[in-house]
Amino acid sequence: MHPKLQQLKSRLSEVDNLNEANAILSWDQMTFMPPGGADSRGRQTATLEKLAHEKFTDPEIGKLLEELQPVAKELPPDSADAALIRITTHDYEKALKIPSSFTAKFSEHNSKIYSVWAKARAERDFKLVAPLLEKTLDYSRELANFFPGYQHIADPLIDDLDEGMTVAIIQPLFQKLRAGLTPLVQQITSLPLTDDTCLHREFPEADQLSFGLKVAKKMGYDFNRGRQDKSPHPFTTSFSIGDVRITTRVKTNSLAESLFSTIHESGHALYEQGINPDFDGTSLATGASMSIHESQSRLWENLVGRSRNFWLYFYPQIQELFPNQLRNVSSEVFYRAINKVERSLIRTEADEVTYNLHVMIRFDLELEMLEGKLAVKDLPEAWNSRYFKDLGVIPTDDSVGVLQDMHWYSGTIGGYFQSYTLGNILSAQFLEAALKAVPSIPTEIAAGNLDPLHGWLREHIYQYGHQFTAQDIITRATGRPLDLEPYLKYIRNKFGEIYHLSLS
Amino acid sequence: MHPKLQQLKSRLSEVDNLNEANAILSWDQMTFMPPGGADSRGRQTATLEKLAHEKFTDPEIGKLLEELQPVAKELPPDSADAALIRITTHDYEKALKIPSSFTAKFSEHNSKIYSVWAKARAERDFKLVAPLLEKTLDYSRELANFFPGYQHIADPLIDDLDEGMTVAIIQPLFQKLRAGLTPLVQQITSLPLTDDTCLHREFPEADQLSFGLKVAKKMGYDFNRGRQDKSPHPFTTSFSIGDVRITTRVKTNSLAESLFSTIHESGHALYEQGINPDFDGTSLATGASMSIHESQSRLWENLVGRSRNFWLYFYPQIQELFPNQLRNVSSEVFYRAINKVERSLIRTEADEVTYNLHVMIRFDLELEMLEGKLAVKDLPEAWNSRYFKDLGVIPTDDSVGVLQDMHWYSGTIGGYFQSYTLGNILSAQFLEAALKAVPSIPTEIAAGNLDPLHGWLREHIYQYGHQFTAQDIITRATGRPLDLEPYLKYIRNKFGEIYHLSLS
Repeated sequence: MHPKLQQLKSRLSEVDNLNEANAILSWDQMTFMPPGGADSRGRQTATLEKLAHEKFTDPEIGKLLEELQPVAKELPPDSADAALIRITTHDYEKALKIPSSFTAKFSEHNSKIYSVWAKARAERDFKLVAPLLEKTLDYSRELANFFPGYQHIADPLIDDLDEGMTVAIIQPLFQKLRAGLTPLVQQITSLPLTDDTCLHREFPEADQLSFGLKVAKKMGYDFNRGRQDKSPHPFTTSFSIGDVRITTRVKTNSLAESLFSTIHESGHALYEQGINPDFDGTSLATGASMSIHESQSRLWENLVGRSRNFWLYFYPQIQELFPNQLRNVSSEVFYRAINKVERSLIRTEADEVTYNLHVMIRFDLELEMLEGKLAVKDLPEAWNSRYFKDLGVIPTDDSVGVLQDMHWYSGTIGGYFQSYTLGNILSAQFLEAALKAVPSIPTEIAAGNLDPLHGWLREHIYQYGHQFTAQDIITRATGRPLDLEPYLKYIRNKFGEIYHLSLS
Repeated sequence: MHPKLQQLKSRLSEVDNLNEANAILSWDQMTFMPPGGADSRGRQTATLEKLAHEKFTDPEIGKLLEELQPVAKELPPDSADAALIRITTHDYEKALKIPSSFTAKFSEHNSKIYSVWAKARAERDFKLVAPLLEKTLDYSRELANFFPGYQHIADPLIDDLDEGMTVAIIQPLFQKLRAGLTPLVQQITSLPLTDDTCLHREFPEADQLSFGLKVAKKMGYDFNRGRQDKSPHPFTTSFSIGDVRITTRVKTNSLAESLFSTIHESGHALYEQGINPDFDGTSLATGASMSIHESQSRLWENLVGRSRNFWLYFYPQIQELFPNQLRNVSSEVFYRAINKVERSLIRTEADEVTYNLHVMIRFDLELEMLEGKLAVKDLPEAWNSRYFKDLGVIPTDDSVGVLQDMHWYSGTIGGYFQSYTLGNILSAQFLEAALKAVPSIPTEIAAGNLDPLHGWLREHIYQYGHQFTAQDIITRATGRPLDLEPYLKYIRNKFGEIYHLSLS
C-alpha cells in the first residue's frame, strides 16, 4: 500500500474509533442508562464528537488527501482504496466548509429544542416550541448556505444523507407517486374498514420478543454479531461489522408494533452486517445512502414481512404461540389485518398505501419553509389543511399533528424525510431485480427459506457498503437508475387484490 | 477561580470524559456485547486510552501545574481545588515516568496473557501460561523501576492503588493478623462442619435478583443513578456520580452467591454515589484508595449483610419469598449457614475468618517473585504448599490453585491483593467509629433502617471522594490511623459466639 494511504488510514481509524465509541454511548443512553446519567452523558459525547471533528479536520489529513489525488487516479476506480480517498475527500471538504463554531451552536440549540419539543408535545402546544423552531429554520438555511451554488436551498441538506439527490429530481418523482397513490387511497377508503381486532388482543411481551427474534434469525440476522434490546423508539446502530444492534418497543395490546419494528430494524442490520469485513473500522463500513438503507428496512418489513408468502410459513407458528388470541383467525384475516389501509394521523403507524402521503406532506412543507414561503408560526395550520386535503383527516391537536415527528426538533428542517419515500420506491425496484435473477425467491419464502433473497441483497447491495455511490448501487443491482414504476406496480397489485379494486 | 486553574480543569475534563467513555465501553463488553464485537472493541478502547494518555501528558498540563503550585499554596489545604492540583501533579509526574512505549507493550502483553490464562485455567495447566507470566514478572519489575528510591520493589506497585502504603507497613500488620486468625481457624475447623444445605436448594433467578435489588435499595443505592445487570464476574463501575452501575451473577442452586455479591457491589456503589456532586467529572470523583473502597464493599457485605441484626429484619422477607425452600429453616440456622467457616481452596468463596489467609498467601508469594526469591515455574508448588500450611488443603489442580484469580494474568504481579485485606481491617475500624457516634445503628438495622449507618459513612467517607488521602480519611473518620484491633475484635466476638469458642 502507498505509504501516504497507510498514514491516512491510520488517522481515519482514530476518527472511526471515536465515532463508534460515541455510537455505543448513544445506544446505552437509549436503552439502559439511568436518568441520572443524562448530564454526564452530554459532556462525554460532546468530548468524543469534538475530538473526532478535530482529528478529521486536521490539516495533515488535507495534505495527505492532496498528495493522494494522483495516487487515486492510478487505482482501479471501483477499488475500495479509490472509494476511501473519494469519500474522505468529499467529507473533508464538506467538514471544512462548516465552521466548528456553527456546529457547536447548532448542537447546543438541538439539545435545547429537543427537550422543549418533548414538553410541547406532552402539552399538545406547538406555540411552546415555535420560537426555537424559527431558530432551527435559520440554522438550516445557514447550514445550506455554507454550500453555495445549489439549485434549491434544500439540496445541500438532502445531499448530506442522500448524496446526489436534489429537489429537482425528487419533486417530479413525488408528484407522479402522489398521482398514482391518491386514486387508490380514495377507492380503498370508500370501502368498509378492514377488521384488525385480531392484532389487538393481549400478547405477552416475552412471547412477542421471542417471535420477533425467531423471524430476525430466519432473515439471517447474526446474533453472534448483534443483539436486540428495548428502547422508547426502535433504531439500528452499528459499532463495527461485528457488532450491529437493534432495538424494539413492545405494546402488549398490539401484535404488529414490535414484530414489524423488529423486521424493519433487522433489515437495516442485515445491511450493516453484510458489508465486506475488510471495510471494518473505515468510512466504507456504512450504507451507500439513507435512502438505500431505508429501502432495505422497508423491503424486509413490507415487501417480505407483510406478504402472503411470508405468512404461509410463519402464520402457523405465530398461531401456535398465541393459540387463544388467534384461535379462530384465518391466515387470510390476519394477512388483511396487517395490511389494513386507513386514513390516519400518524406517519409511523401508517399503512403502505398512505405512508408516502404522510412523508410528502412533510417534504413539501419543509421546502416551503426553507424557501421562505411558509412561516413557522403558520406551520400547524398548513399541516392540518394538507392533512385534510391529502388524507381527509384533521389532527385533533398538535401532538398528533405537527409535533409528532422528532426530526425538525432535533436537526435541520429539510434533508431527512425524502429518504423514507425514496427508500420505499427503491425497495420495489430492488425486489423486482432479485425476483428476475432468482425466480424461486417467493416459493422459498413460502417455505421459510429467506436465504436466497438475503443472499441476492448481500451480493448486490450489502457487501459494497459505501464503496459505490447510491446511484451506482442502484444501476449495478437493477440495470437502471431509480425508477418509480416497480413500486407503483407493487402497491397497485397488492392492494388491488386485497381490496378487489378494478384499477385502470 | 484562577484562570490557570480554569484552563487546567477544562483540559482535565476532556481526559475524564475519555476515561468515562472507556468505562462505558468496558461495562458493555462485560454485560451485553455480542462475541463478534470483541475485535472492534479492542481498537475502540485502545484509541480512547491513547487519546486520554496523550491529553493528560500534554506538556501544556505540566506547564499549568507548575504555574499553579504557588496558587495551590494560597488555597486552604483542605479545599477541593488544592486537592485537585495535588492529585493531578502526583498523577502527572507518575504518568511522565512511564514511557508510553512501555504502556503499549504491557497492555498488548496483558490482552495476550489474559486469553492464554483463560485457556490454561480451562485445561487446568499452569505450564501453558508460565512463560507469559515470566514476562509479566519482568514487566512488573520494569514498571516498579521507573520509580527508583523505593524501599521494596513492590512499593511503587502498591502505591499505585493504595497511595502511601508500603511493604514495610503491610508486612508486620499482616503478621499480626495471621497470628490472630490462625488459632481461630484451627479451633473452628476442628468442630463439625456447619450445615448450610438451606442455601443450596433451588432458588429461581428472577426472585434472587428482585430480593437483591430490594436490599440494595434499602441500603440507599439510588437506582435513579444506577442499575444492576448480569456479568460473568460481578463489578462496580462509575461513569459519573449520576450513573454508577453494578453487576452480579446468579447461581440458582446458591442463595448466597448473587445476594452477597449484590450487597458487596452496592457498598462500592454507595461510595461512588455519595461523592460530593460538585466533584463530578473530575479526578476527585473516585474513592480515596482501593483499600478504602474495599472497606466499604466488605463493611456492607459482611459486617452488615452477614449480621444477626440485618437478618432480624430481612429473614422473614426472604423466607416469604422462598416459602418452600426455607420452610423449616430458622433464622439462626440461616445465620450460621451464611457464616459457615471452612478450610477452602477458593478466595472469592471464602468465609470471613479464612478469607484473609487466602489474600496473605498471594501477597507473600508475589513479594517473593518480585524479590527474585521465587521463580515463576516454582509458583504452583509454592502455592500448594502454602495452602497446605495455612489452610490445611491442597488444590486438586491449578484451576482451583494458582490459576484461580485473574489479577496476575491481567496486570502486574503485586499491587492489588493487599487492598482486600486492608479493606477488611478498615471496615471494622470504620464501623466501630460509626457505632460510637451513632449507638442506635444496630437497633435501626434490626428495624430495617440502614440510613443512619449510610448517613454516617456518607458524611465521613463517601462525600470526600478523593479530596483527602486514604490516611487522612481514616484519621478524620476514626480519630486514629489504620488499626488492626477493631477487626480482630470483631472477628473474635462474632465467630467466638457462633462457634461457642473460649478465646483468651
